[in-house]
Amino acid sequence: MRPRLLALALTLCCATANADEGMWMPSQLPSIAKELRAAGFQGDPAALAELTRPPMSAVVSLSGCTASFVSPKGLVVTNHHCAYGAIQLNSTPERNLMEAGFNAGALAQEVSAGPAARVLVTTAFDKVSQRVLDAARGKQGRAYFDAIDVATKAIVAECESEPGYRCSVANMYYGTDFYLIRQLELKDIRLVYAPPEAIGNYGDEIDNFMWPRHTGDFAFYRAYVGRDGKPAAYSPDNVPYAPPAHLTVSTDPVAEGDFAMVAGYPGVTFRHRMASEFRNQIDWQLPSRVGLFGAMIKTIESAAAPDENAKVLYASQVASLKNGLKRAQGELDGLRRSDAVRVRGQDEAAMLAWLARQPDAAAIQADIAAAQAVLDGAAAMRERDQLIAAMRSQTQLLRSAIGLQRLALERGKPDAQRESGFQQRDEALIEATLRQVQRRYAPAVEKALLADLLRQYQALPAAQHVAEFDAVFGTTPAQIDERLEALYAGTRLGDEATRMALMSADATSLAASTDTLLKAAAQLLPATLRLEAESKAESGELLRLRPAYMRALIGYRDSQGRKVYPDANSTLRVGYGRVSALDARDAVSYRPLTTVAGIAHKHTGQAPFAAPAPLLAAIAKGDFGSTADAKLGTQTVDFLTNLDTTGGNSGSPVLDARGRLIGLNFDSNWEAVSASWMFDPRYKRAIHVDMRYLRWLLAKVYPAPALLQEMNLPAE
Amino acid sequence: MRPRLLALALTLCCATANADEGMWMPSQLPSIAKELRAAGFQGDPAALAELTRPPMSAVVSLSGCTASFVSPKGLVVTNHHCAYGAIQLNSTPERNLMEAGFNAGALAQEVSAGPAARVLVTTAFDKVSQRVLDAARGKQGRAYFDAIDVATKAIVAECESEPGYRCSVANMYYGTDFYLIRQLELKDIRLVYAPPEAIGNYGDEIDNFMWPRHTGDFAFYRAYVGRDGKPAAYSPDNVPYAPPAHLTVSTDPVAEGDFAMVAGYPGVTFRHRMASEFRNQIDWQLPSRVGLFGAMIKTIESAAAPDENAKVLYASQVASLKNGLKRAQGELDGLRRSDAVRVRGQDEAAMLAWLARQPDAAAIQADIAAAQAVLDGAAAMRERDQLIAAMRSQTQLLRSAIGLQRLALERGKPDAQRESGFQQRDEALIEATLRQVQRRYAPAVEKALLADLLRQYQALPAAQHVAEFDAVFGTTPAQIDERLEALYAGTRLGDEATRMALMSADATSLAASTDTLLKAAAQLLPATLRLEAESKAESGELLRLRPAYMRALIGYRDSQGRKVYPDANSTLRVGYGRVSALDARDAVSYRPLTTVAGIAHKHTGQAPFAAPAPLLAAIAKGDFGSTADAKLGTQTVDFLTNLDTTGGNSGSPVLDARGRLIGLNFDSNWEAVSASWMFDPRYKRAIHVDMRYLRWLLAKVYPAPALLQEMNLPAE
Repeated sequence: MRPRLLALALTLCCATANADEGMWMPSQLPSIAKELRAAGFQGDPAALAELTRPPMSAVVSLSGCTASFVSPKGLVVTNHHCAYGAIQLNSTPERNLMEAGFNAGALAQEVSAGPAARVLVTTAFDKVSQRVLDAARGKQGRAYFDAIDVATKAIVAECESEPGYRCSVANMYYGTDFYLIRQLELKDIRLVYAPPEAIGNYGDEIDNFMWPRHTGDFAFYRAYVGRDGKPAAYSPDNVPYAPPAHLTVSTDPVAEGDFAMVAGYPGVTFRHRMASEFRNQIDWQLPSRVGLFGAMIKTIESAAAPDENAKVLYASQVASLKNGLKRAQGELDGLRRSDAVRVRGQDEAAMLAWLARQPDAAAIQADIAAAQAVLDGAAAMRERDQLIAAMRSQTQLLRSAIGLQRLALERGKPDAQRESGFQQRDEALIEATLRQVQRRYAPAVEKALLADLLRQYQALPAAQHVAEFDAVFGTTPAQIDERLEALYAGTRLGDEATRMALMSADATSLAASTDTLLKAAAQLLPATLRLEAESKAESGELLRLRPAYMRALIGYRDSQGRKVYPDANSTLRVGYGRVSALDARDAVSYRPLTTVAGIAHKHTGQAPFAAPAPLLAAIAKGDFGSTADAKLGTQTVDFLTNLDTTGGNSGSPVLDARGRLIGLNFDSNWEAVSASWMFDPRYKRAIHVDMRYLRWLLAKVYPAPALLQEMNLPAE
Repeated sequence: MRPRLLALALTLCCATANADEGMWMPSQLPSIAKELRAAGFQGDPAALAELTRPPMSAVVSLSGCTASFVSPKGLVVTNHHCAYGAIQLNSTPERNLMEAGFNAGALAQEVSAGPAARVLVTTAFDKVSQRVLDAARGKQGRAYFDAIDVATKAIVAECESEPGYRCSVANMYYGTDFYLIRQLELKDIRLVYAPPEAIGNYGDEIDNFMWPRHTGDFAFYRAYVGRDGKPAAYSPDNVPYAPPAHLTVSTDPVAEGDFAMVAGYPGVTFRHRMASEFRNQIDWQLPSRVGLFGAMIKTIESAAAPDENAKVLYASQVASLKNGLKRAQGELDGLRRSDAVRVRGQDEAAMLAWLARQPDAAAIQADIAAAQAVLDGAAAMRERDQLIAAMRSQTQLLRSAIGLQRLALERGKPDAQRESGFQQRDEALIEATLRQVQRRYAPAVEKALLADLLRQYQALPAAQHVAEFDAVFGTTPAQIDERLEALYAGTRLGDEATRMALMSADATSLAASTDTLLKAAAQLLPATLRLEAESKAESGELLRLRPAYMRALIGYRDSQGRKVYPDANSTLRVGYGRVSALDARDAVSYRPLTTVAGIAHKHTGQAPFAAPAPLLAAIAKGDFGSTADAKLGTQTVDFLTNLDTTGGNSGSPVLDARGRLIGLNFDSNWEAVSASWMFDPRYKRAIHVDMRYLRWLLAKVYPAPALLQEMNLPAE
C-alpha cells in the first residue's frame, strides 16, 4: 500500500503545480520558458518560438488534420483516418487498399493522393492587427463586421498574388489581434504506406473516444514538387520536396510521467467565453439540444415505422441525430461533472473585481457590459433560432426550396458579392446536395418532423415570432397540419429532374412558379435575409467589444502570474504535459500504455475487431526486437497523455523532452468531450499511437525497410 | 514509477506464494494453520475447525444462501437478494417494502418472512463413510448407486426422528467420504430491516457480475423459537432465539492487502474433475451450448416475428436463453483465457506419472481407467443427450405431454418409491407449471423450434439414435414437418382446462387418450425411462470409481506439500485471501474499494440507477461519522477480495484477521464466471458489501439506532 500512496501523492502534487492546460502560440513559448523547463523540457523554448523555423516548420497542415515531415525527402506522417480519402481513392475491387493496406516499397510505386490533397507549409506568420483594426475603427455592428471582412480579404488577395501560396488571416483573442499566415501549398501528395484498416481503424465507432485503445492510426504521405522546387500539380516528372525541417523519431521508451509536447492545428475552443455563455451552454443550449434531438429521433422513427422504405431513407439522418445527441449529452455530463458554471462564474467574478481596482477600468467595463447586452439579445431569441435552424437543416424539400430561391437571388449579383455558400464555386456542392434529396426523403416523415418543430415554434412567446413564418405555416396547431398538407401536396420538388431544372432557372421564372413549396420559400426569403443581417450585426458588435473582455482577462491572469493562450482557431499551437494515467471513475483506473495483448483480447474476428492474421501471428510469436517496452516486457500500442488537444489535432506529432517524435495524436477520451469549453485536468486526456508500435509494424509485420532507413531507424 | 513497480512485484510474489484458492472444510483448517498464519490470520486455526462451535456456529444456512448471527438475540444478517422473497411477501400496494425498504424499529414490529423461511443452525457434523460405503461394497453401476441412496436415506431418517432437526448426508471428494449433517431448523423467521431496493439492488441486471459495484445488498432477519427454546412455527408468543455464537462487527477500516476470510455454503464446483472432463467442457460442451442456444434464439425470434402476440409469449424464454448463452460464452472465454485444458491436462499427467511410481498404483490406475471409460461412454452420446434435453426443456406442449404420462406412471407406485420430482410433495409445482403453459406458448414457434432440434438430431450418427424418437418424429427432414403438423393439429394440450383435467386422470385413461401429443409421449416414455436408468448406472459407476482418482490427487498434492479441499457441495466451507485490486484487462485496473461518489456518478434517476433522495442528500452532505474511510476521505460502499466463492456464498460473512465481520459476500466479477471449473488467481474476485456502508445507512440515512446498539456498534 505505501508505495501506491506515495505515487498518488506525487500525482496530486504535480497536477496542482502544472495544470497542463494550454494551446500556446509558438511565439508565446519563450514567455513560459520557466514552466516548460520545470515540466521537463530539455530543449531551448526560444527555438520553438517561430513556426517558420525548425522544428515547428516540420509541422504541417493537412486540410483539417495535422502532419509532420519525418525525412529530408518530404516524407510525411499523419493519421490513417486523415489519409483515408487517399486510401479509398486508390482502392479498386481487385486491390482494396482499405482492407489490405498499402506499402509502396519504392518512390516509383507511390500513388497520388488525388488532385484535392494538400500539404501546407507555413512560411510566414505576421501580425496585421493594426491594418485590420484601423479599417474598422469608429464603426459598429454590421459596418464593423464588413470592415474587418473587407480588410481581411484584401490582405489575403495581396498575399496570394505570389503563385504557390495560400494565405489566411487568423483572429486571435476574439478580435484583439489578427495574423497573416502564408503557407506554401504543396499539391502533389502521394500515398506511401498505410496499414490495413483493421489496424489503422481497429475498434472503429465502438472504440471511438474510448481508452484503453489499440488502434494503429497512422499512414505515410510524401510531398512532391516540380523540378524547379516549386509547388506543382501531380506529374510523373515531379521530385520529392525537401522540407525546411523534419522531426527525428525517438528510439527511447515512453513511460508514465514522461514529459510530452504536442504541436498541431486545433480547430475551435470556447474556453475564454464569458460566464453567461457558459451558463447558456450548460443550462440551456446542451439540455435543449438533447431534448430537441431526442424528440426529432422519436418523431422520425414513429413516422417512418409503418414504411420499411422510409426507415431506410431516414437511417442516416437518425444515426446522425443520435450521434449529435450522444455528443451533446457527453459534453453536458462533462461540464456538470467539472462544475463549469460555478467555476467559470467565480473566475469571472474575481476578474471583474480585479478590473474594478484598475485605473482604466471604466471603458473596459462599459465594453464588457455592452457585449453582455448583445449576448442577452441573442439569448432572448435562442429558442426561435434553434427551431428555425432545425427546420432548415433537418428537412429535405423545405431546405431545397429555400436554397433554390436564395441561389436565384444571389445569382443576380456579381460573384464576389454573393453570400458565402452561394458563389459559383459552391454550385457543384449545391447541385450534389439537391440530387441526393430523394434518397433521404419521405413526405410523411418530413411533414411529421416539421409539424413537431412548428408546434414548438408556435408555443414561443410573441416576441420570438417571425411574421413570414406565421404567414406561411399558420398560428394554430390545426393550421399547421392543414398548411403542410397543402404545401406538400402541391410541390414537385420531390422529383429530381424538377429540382435540377429549377437550379438553372432565373429569379423571374422562380418567382412565377406555382409550386407550393417554392412559393412558400419566396415568402420566407425576406425573413431569412433579415435574420442573417441581424446575426452579422451581432457578430460585428462582439468582434468590437470582446477584446475588452480579453484584455481584462489577460491583465487579471498576469496579476496571477499566468499567461493566456488564444482560444483555438485552426492555427498552429503547442501544448505540453506528460504521459498520464486516468482515474476515469470511482475505483476505475486506466494505465497510460496499452499493449498488443489488448489487440488479441479484443479480437473477435468480426469488424471492427478483426485483427489481421499476420498481426495476430506476430503478436503470438512475440518477436518485438528494439521496439519492445523493457519494463512491460511486451510491445506497446497506444499511449495516453494529459496534452491539451481538440478536433484538428488529428495527426499531430507528440514530442518528448528533447523534441523527438514519440507518438501521433489521434483521439481524446470520452470524459474529455467537454474540454472544448473547459479543461479539467482530472479528465482531459489525449490518445496517441506509440511510434514504437508503428516501427514494429514496419519492421516485423508489414515490412517497409526502406522507410525505416529513410527515417534513420533500426531495421528491427 | 518506482513505487508502482514495487507494488506490482509484491503482488506477484504473494500471488505465487499463496494461491488463495480453496473452499476448505473447517476441519481442514488446523492442517493449513501455517499458511493461514502466514497470510495474516491472527486467531487460532483450531478454533475454526468445528462448525458446531463458535465462531463457525454463528454461520447459518438460508435455503440457497448463507447468513450469520450478529447478536445474542438471534439477529441474522444476509443479502438483500436472499431476503427478497420475504420483502416481497410483506409488500402491499399501499406499503411497498421493495421500494421503500423496511425498518421494524422494535421487536413487536418485526414481520414474518413467511411459513417457508428457514434458518438452519448446524449442530452436528459426523463422518458416516464406513456405513454408507459398506452398504455399497462389492456392487457396481445402478446397484452401487441405489445402495448409496438407500443407506443415505436411512441415516437421514434416523437423524430426523428427533423433531426440530433437518438432516442430510454430504458426499465429499466424489464418493470418497460421507458426512451426516444435523441442523436445527428454525421456522419462525422475521424481517427486521431492509434498505430500499434502489440501494439493496442498485444496478440490478446491468451491474450484475460487474465491478466497480455500488450495491447495499444486505438485510436483517431475526430467528424466533418457542418459549421452550425449541424450533416452532410462527407465533406471536415466540421469543428471539439465543444462538450458540454470534459474530462481532468490526469498526476498523478495510484496505487493499488486508487479510480476509469467508465462511459459507458454496453450491457446486468442478475443480477436481478429470482432465478429459475439462476438455469436454471447453472443447465441446460450452461451444456447442453457445451454438445451440444461439440457433434456438434465432429460430424462436424468426418464427415469432410475424406475430406480435407470439413475441410477447416467448420474450421470457428468449431472455433466459440469451442469459444462458452469455453465461456459457463468459465461462468459455474465461477458461480459454486461463488456458484450462492445457493447465489441467499437464497437472493430471504429472499426477499420473507420480502415481505410476507408487507401490499401490495398479488398483488405482485400473479404477481411473474404468472411470475414464464411463466418461467416454457418456461423451459418445453427448450430442443426443444435449438435443433431447433441449426438446424437453425448451418446449411447452411436448414437455407437458411427457410430464403428464410420467406423473400417471409414478402415481401407480407408493409415494416413497416414486421418482424424485414426481412425488406427492412435487404435485403443486407440477400443477403450477402446467397452468402457465399457454402464457409461454405459440404453436408455430414450438413447431419451428422442435423441427430445428429434430433436424440436428436426425443428422447424428446411427449409434446416437433412439428408436422411440425415430418412430414418433420420423427419420427424414420431410417427415419431421409432416409429423409435427399432425401432432400439433391433433392435440388439445394448449387448453388449460384440458391439461388440468388430464393431471388428475389415471394411467389407464391417459393410455386411452386420442390426443396426438399424449399418444406420442406414451410412445416416448420407455426411451425416457431407459435413458434415465443408463444415467443412474453411470452415476453409480462414477461414485464407485472416482474415489481412486481423488486418492491419487490427494496423494500427489501431499507430495507437493499441498492440501486438497473437496469440490463445493453446499456444505460449510472456509476460504481466506485478501482485499485485492483487479487488473481486468490491458491497461484497465480496478481498485478494491468503491465509494459513495460512484453511487452519485451512476445515478440517472431511472431504475436500476435511481438512488433514493435521502441517500443522495446524505452523500451530498458528506456526514460520514465513524464509518468514513480516513485514507479515502469518504464513505466506502463495496469491496473486492480474491476469496474463493461460488453460487451459494451469497450472504456469507467476510471476516478480518481477528475474525470480526467486515463484509457480506454478494457477487463475483464477470471475469470469474469460469471459476467453478478453474480458480485463476489473476481474475477470481469476490464482491462484498462493506459493513461500514451498512453501518452508515443504519446510522445516518435510514436510522436504526436500536439495531446498532444491539450489535454493540457506535450510534454514528
